[in-house]
Amino acid sequence: MQDMMMNDQLGIGMIMRHAEQIAAEVEIVSVLGDGSRHRYTYGQAFARARRLANALERLDIGSGARVATLAWNDYRHFELYYAVPCSGRVCHTINPRLFPEQIAYIIRHAEDQVLFLDPQFIPLLEQLQTELPGVRHYVALCATHELPVSSLPHLHSYEALLAAETAEYSWPELDERTPSGLCYTSGTTGNPKGVLYSHRSTVLHSLAGNLADVIGLRAEDVVLPIVPMFHVNAWGMPYNAAMVGAKLVLPGPRAGDGATLAALINDEQVTYALGVPTVWLALAQHLEQGDVQIPSLRRAVSGGAACPLALIERMERHGVTLEVGWGMTETSPLGSYNRYQPWYDGLPAAERGQQLVKAGRQVFGVQLRTIDEQGNELPRDGVAAGALQARGPWVCAGYFGGERCDDWFDTGDVAAIDASGYLQITDRTKDVIKSGGEWISSIDIENAMMAHPQVAEAAVIGVAHPRWSERPLLLVVPRAGHVPHTEELLDFLQGKVAKWWLPDACELLDELPHTATGKVSKKDLRERFVGYQWPK
Amino acid sequence: MQDMMMNDQLGIGMIMRHAEQIAAEVEIVSVLGDGSRHRYTYGQAFARARRLANALERLDIGSGARVATLAWNDYRHFELYYAVPCSGRVCHTINPRLFPEQIAYIIRHAEDQVLFLDPQFIPLLEQLQTELPGVRHYVALCATHELPVSSLPHLHSYEALLAAETAEYSWPELDERTPSGLCYTSGTTGNPKGVLYSHRSTVLHSLAGNLADVIGLRAEDVVLPIVPMFHVNAWGMPYNAAMVGAKLVLPGPRAGDGATLAALINDEQVTYALGVPTVWLALAQHLEQGDVQIPSLRRAVSGGAACPLALIERMERHGVTLEVGWGMTETSPLGSYNRYQPWYDGLPAAERGQQLVKAGRQVFGVQLRTIDEQGNELPRDGVAAGALQARGPWVCAGYFGGERCDDWFDTGDVAAIDASGYLQITDRTKDVIKSGGEWISSIDIENAMMAHPQVAEAAVIGVAHPRWSERPLLLVVPRAGHVPHTEELLDFLQGKVAKWWLPDACELLDELPHTATGKVSKKDLRERFVGYQWPK
Repeated sequence: MQDMMMNDQLGIGMIMRHAEQIAAEVEIVSVLGDGSRHRYTYGQAFARARRLANALERLDIGSGARVATLAWNDYRHFELYYAVPCSGRVCHTINPRLFPEQIAYIIRHAEDQVLFLDPQFIPLLEQLQTELPGVRHYVALCATHELPVSSLPHLHSYEALLAAETAEYSWPELDERTPSGLCYTSGTTGNPKGVLYSHRSTVLHSLAGNLADVIGLRAEDVVLPIVPMFHVNAWGMPYNAAMVGAKLVLPGPRAGDGATLAALINDEQVTYALGVPTVWLALAQHLEQGDVQIPSLRRAVSGGAACPLALIERMERHGVTLEVGWGMTETSPLGSYNRYQPWYDGLPAAERGQQLVKAGRQVFGVQLRTIDEQGNELPRDGVAAGALQARGPWVCAGYFGGERCDDWFDTGDVAAIDASGYLQITDRTKDVIKSGGEWISSIDIENAMMAHPQVAEAAVIGVAHPRWSERPLLLVVPRAGHVPHTEELLDFLQGKVAKWWLPDACELLDELPHTATGKVSKKDLRERFVGYQWPK
Repeated sequence: MQDMMMNDQLGIGMIMRHAEQIAAEVEIVSVLGDGSRHRYTYGQAFARARRLANALERLDIGSGARVATLAWNDYRHFELYYAVPCSGRVCHTINPRLFPEQIAYIIRHAEDQVLFLDPQFIPLLEQLQTELPGVRHYVALCATHELPVSSLPHLHSYEALLAAETAEYSWPELDERTPSGLCYTSGTTGNPKGVLYSHRSTVLHSLAGNLADVIGLRAEDVVLPIVPMFHVNAWGMPYNAAMVGAKLVLPGPRAGDGATLAALINDEQVTYALGVPTVWLALAQHLEQGDVQIPSLRRAVSGGAACPLALIERMERHGVTLEVGWGMTETSPLGSYNRYQPWYDGLPAAERGQQLVKAGRQVFGVQLRTIDEQGNELPRDGVAAGALQARGPWVCAGYFGGERCDDWFDTGDVAAIDASGYLQITDRTKDVIKSGGEWISSIDIENAMMAHPQVAEAAVIGVAHPRWSERPLLLVVPRAGHVPHTEELLDFLQGKVAKWWLPDACELLDELPHTATGKVSKKDLRERFVGYQWPK
């Protein structure tokens, strides 16, 4: 028996049309490379997206073709986010921080036919272009007079392409399972793998994220995605903000430093921002150095890496509720979210702290579970920790060009889930420290260490030990101007983590190695400390 | 090209599983027929839903079969809302306020195989049962000892059925387009027509309703659907509340009077409630008579009929933000919603009032448009009024047993839409008053009249006029103890509506006729005033 509801397909075009009808006059603000700001409205953005769709036709980019971007967060990138998928093509966002050989690999693997790039990446592509015979056009995201002299073949200026077209374009009706976006993950081993999103997965992901108990954007919000648009669709914000008609602030190429961020937040009256912990660390340090306040910013989310409680508490002192989210490229990314709940106010301080650092609850639509090493599902008791698995309409069932598998997805994280669904990530599967047959959570120890006033960054890795198989080694980057005693640092952890978790030694470092997506590379640390001599 | 996202299907089972995992201990409170309250948790509710699914197997009710309910808002009805669709059957909720012959008609038309009914409806069914040969089982929603002596064949007690089963049941995987619910609309002409919802439409409707800028339920909320569960799924609340794990309060058979409502709101600390304007009128009157306050109730929604500004302002004085929603059985029902926005605070009083009575903006996923009599789309300028059409994944494409048509759905309302998407319903197409070739909005005049202190209810109908084709006639039910002068009432409208809209006459009535769903029946009024003699 068939239902009698309309067949209307979920699509990014639905978001675009809705924003045009409720928020045509709402602003999108972009910070440009020279620090100046570009301002226009959703209405103008989508008129330009129609020109862009016409330009893609003129460049003879077929339906389903991959259209690559190498770009920072700005309005032209926003236009690509809509024009490419809504015209039936696939928007492939590339992380410019990857190694050049990785960038060349994924452009070839994705079979990108056209590459839209910020002019600063032209020298990189000049270097790679002989390896990229499939790229038929390069489009620099600039005006014609800004186009540099270049050896790149078929190099157009974006503005010249758009100027040649009309803003009349009839968006095609697309099946909701039509691919819309492609994003490669850079694992620590092997080649990057592509996650192929669909219109359906993107719309459902945005709906779930905008639920009142999750991110819950409202029309009155001003949204600042500091997370790059090349990184899992800036956690969905170019779609989530448009879905509710919220003002969007795109911070351009230099969003990392605290002073720039604070000024942008104040100028644009940002109410909600998204970034990795290091961004919030930079902002907190800036606010603490001067007399700066950021009263408009009520909430922010930290994702991409474990967020130390000390950082949440610092942001709280500046009036910002820093909420923790969890996800990955393979989960679009939103898998769980810790929306601040009024009942947290009533918890004793220690319990409240434990609650705040949790990764929240599975977002409606996603299922999370933990399994033991034999594959048995673990109880949801907040204690049993095991390999975290996910499934749902915006979780990947395989990688681009690979086999489909609609079974549970292995996230590579180790976690415990409690009876109310709260998720505590304790480690990465590959980073877990196996000591005497038991697991030690490096993240918990790192969180505890970050509360020390002289500690800027901390990492705990497992190092081979003759008796226990592995034991934890604590690695600390002190705050500028401080040289803490390692014994004192180790003592600080007493009573804050289980006794047998206490690291056996501590080393001070000038900095920690980071991956292309800004995470601490424990793989590099483990390699560096292979054969480490434990103190007697 | 296929996407690489999981095939997971949207389903009501997804809501159930999510609530079990995040809110197993959260309460569902039901007011019973004797005024006592039944309390249990989502965890217990879904365990009983599994017993119920086993009972449906034992009664040999096949996949896709229609399972009817004739019941008030309580926990057993809630269990039917999940067990029936999640086991692959269709939950057909019947409005007990329909005429008996209409009830018999829709049971036959739906081919209901089993009927779950509150014991008070047993006499009604005894009277109808010879006309219902297709109903194989009657199940009274009570314990065995509460089962009355009855001539109904195959009459079971609900509790006996459940007690005979285990709480072990494996919910089937269902395609998301599987029908889940059926609800008949009683038009003013012809037989009632059935709207057949699907798992997909139900889940998308709940997601859209829980967007932060729409109803936006949160886990901390306590939700009271005063709107009956037989009326468009209580506007979705049994699903919306479970989706976020919010406490649900089901008010049972006697939810209409102000005193009962106020007590329930205070006892259960209700934060959000849903009902038609007459419910809020009764509550406001009760609060104004005594020294009662309802501080927990922060927001409520009025739907099902136009909400007068005077009522919104009265509720505001009691600390409740009364928001206006618009929809119908054919739209699941949520089509638009007027979430209170912070910028309303800054409007001059008159503009703020105009904004508050609007039906809000199209909910994301639904498209609304207005057309003229030639079928041309009207501008979104807030002025041009025309026939309102809707489309979207939870808008019906035809009626049960009829033809599918995926074109725009004619809502039967007349409306204007402004440049920000705000919708102003001005009339029903069939109630619109055509005077001298122009349309007069009866709803606007009624709203203005309701602000008069001596007016309890007001209706404006078009009556034949020798010169203007039709002219508006004002019909007023005074507040108890008042006998206003009709001239004074007409004068009161001066300056509040366009001069040529001013009714030509006013008549006082003891009461207005209402339809089975509680709306003023203008059809009956027009019939009563056919041939009305206009005063000179």
